[in-house]
Amino acid sequence: MNPAQPKMLDEQARAAALARQARLTKPAGALARLEEVAVELAAMQGRERPRIERPWISVFAADHGVVAEGVSAYPQAVTGQMIGNFAHGGAAISVLAREIGAQLEVVDVGSLLDPRDLPGVVWAKAGPGTANLATGPAMTEAQLDHALKVGRQAVERALAAECDLFIGGEMGIGNTTAASALACALLGEDPASLSGPGTGLDTAGIAHKAGVIRRALALHAPALDSPHEVLRRLGGFEIAALAGAYMTCARRGLPAVIDGVISTAAALCAERLLPGAKAWWLFGHRSSEPAHARLLAALDARPLLDLGLRLGEGSGAAAAIPLIKLACALHNGMATFDEAGVEDR
Amino acid sequence: MNPAQPKMLDEQARAAALARQARLTKPAGALARLEEVAVELAAMQGRERPRIERPWISVFAADHGVVAEGVSAYPQAVTGQMIGNFAHGGAAISVLAREIGAQLEVVDVGSLLDPRDLPGVVWAKAGPGTANLATGPAMTEAQLDHALKVGRQAVERALAAECDLFIGGEMGIGNTTAASALACALLGEDPASLSGPGTGLDTAGIAHKAGVIRRALALHAPALDSPHEVLRRLGGFEIAALAGAYMTCARRGLPAVIDGVISTAAALCAERLLPGAKAWWLFGHRSSEPAHARLLAALDARPLLDLGLRLGEGSGAAAAIPLIKLACALHNGMATFDEAGVEDR
Repeated sequence: MNPAQPKMLDEQARAAALARQARLTKPAGALARLEEVAVELAAMQGRERPRIERPWISVFAADHGVVAEGVSAYPQAVTGQMIGNFAHGGAAISVLAREIGAQLEVVDVGSLLDPRDLPGVVWAKAGPGTANLATGPAMTEAQLDHALKVGRQAVERALAAECDLFIGGEMGIGNTTAASALACALLGEDPASLSGPGTGLDTAGIAHKAGVIRRALALHAPALDSPHEVLRRLGGFEIAALAGAYMTCARRGLPAVIDGVISTAAALCAERLLPGAKAWWLFGHRSSEPAHARLLAALDARPLLDLGLRLGEGSGAAAAIPLIKLACALHNGMATFDEAGVEDR
Repeated sequence: MNPAQPKMLDEQARAAALARQARLTKPAGALARLEEVAVELAAMQGRERPRIERPWISVFAADHGVVAEGVSAYPQAVTGQMIGNFAHGGAAISVLAREIGAQLEVVDVGSLLDPRDLPGVVWAKAGPGTANLATGPAMTEAQLDHALKVGRQAVERALAAECDLFIGGEMGIGNTTAASALACALLGEDPASLSGPGTGLDTAGIAHKAGVIRRALALHAPALDSPHEVLRRLGGFEIAALAGAYMTCARRGLPAVIDGVISTAAALCAERLLPGAKAWWLFGHRSSEPAHARLLAALDARPLLDLGLRLGEGSGAAAAIPLIKLACALHNGMATFDEAGVEDR
């Protein structure tokens, strides 16, 4: 069994890392976020000199019943086609995983694709896509449990492979609708302000999507004061898997880097279900989906990158890994004022 | 001799790269700035598939007579001490150069340090620090010529070493004063709005620095409609070397990545002296010095990173290199819709 609470950070290691930063040959704070990231990781890893050597990426894929409402610019079959593309190394996250030296797996937690022999794909379906969240709960209780467990197991695989950082990605045509619905329910916001283009809707498409979300929020309103019910009724299998993975990272003490709007919606669900979990997460980037900035604010999150990315797959988190590695290298490799014979004022 | 104009970009390669981006397995524009960077580099390198394999970093160091006015939180001796730190591999840029696989040289273009045997230091002094820009021109005509040439020669060394990207860094106690003065003169701004803490001034220190700059602007006012005179009277040896390097990158067709406020002040001088040069530059980061945002806006520049860095040395440009490499890897390594059998709507 997992412990009930997030693992405590190591405040002694944090203090030692902070003291080290103060001795490095640069004006105090001149490396700003890169200093903070190194100190955060020191507190997570329990050592003055943190390092990230083996990142792990699990991309969770699933289909969404809500696409029946016409909320996506792409046909639903693309979810399954992209699973093949991940497996064959042609997707953005496949390229990024190779470049950052990460181990990549794709977890089918509930797409409409028939399982077949694809390298690096874990078949763990909670069902053939969720139900339509605009007409009923997206998941049964058993399906939610299953999806949460699939996320948990992915983190356990990462730990078993001695990886030192977890990235969760997602793929699922329709999932920006689920993520925006989650954001609206958890933050008490209006769908008009948190609905975006997703894979490429125009203005009319976005307005239609906001209307579908508004309908869903009204339907499920009586149950939305419970984060568990919010996730079950408005979420997706891949979103629940991400939430399960992020909670497990916090319980097991594995640093995670959160990706874009879908992942951050999952992260906010996880933080509501397991308060304090967010201490174990760094945030890779700020996406251009309107709900993302609000979700990040609700988590007091300051992402490393702001490049307008809106692809998902874990791509914005993976793109931040080189910066995190540089932060560690600077922290560990720079000379101190004493070592270098440089005057500190 | 260098040609008089910047080299033309290859618009055919740009069009081919744009067409390739449109076929990659992602919604159009979903990788945003990472797509744009790859396409820009394609136009610079004249090939549909750009790549950055051998970056080069020249850190130009020099001293500044204006420190006599008490404008820096650190003693002037730190310039020379940091040259030693660069040479011995302990400075931030030394660590970053190792991590990104860049060739690093330090060019003393006019510090107060006596030349001695330090690995990787090029001795090319224009003089023992500039004169005090608050009481007269910082440089003579001959010193400006020398410093511009030192920058040009650094780029020629990078080209001779078959490097494919140039980063210019700088070190010089007092040089945020020079950079802010340049920014005020070139942009017609008030010193109060463009003076910042540099290596760590408090509010009173910043106000004093702004007063020194205001005095300098009044003294040199009659000559400040010429960018050449702005650079000679208010600049520094390392700033002039950077300007010379950036102009040479544009003339010789070598992509450059611009660093923080000092480097961007040099870049704006270079663009005023050689209009169109900026087509050859990418921008690494937005620093927290107040003048930087205004300098970037004057160059229509959109930096890749925004992490609050304010170290100089080329550190913010170097930190952006992994992202530039990822942009190329995604551009070159992702599957097209046809190759992957994924529907493009």
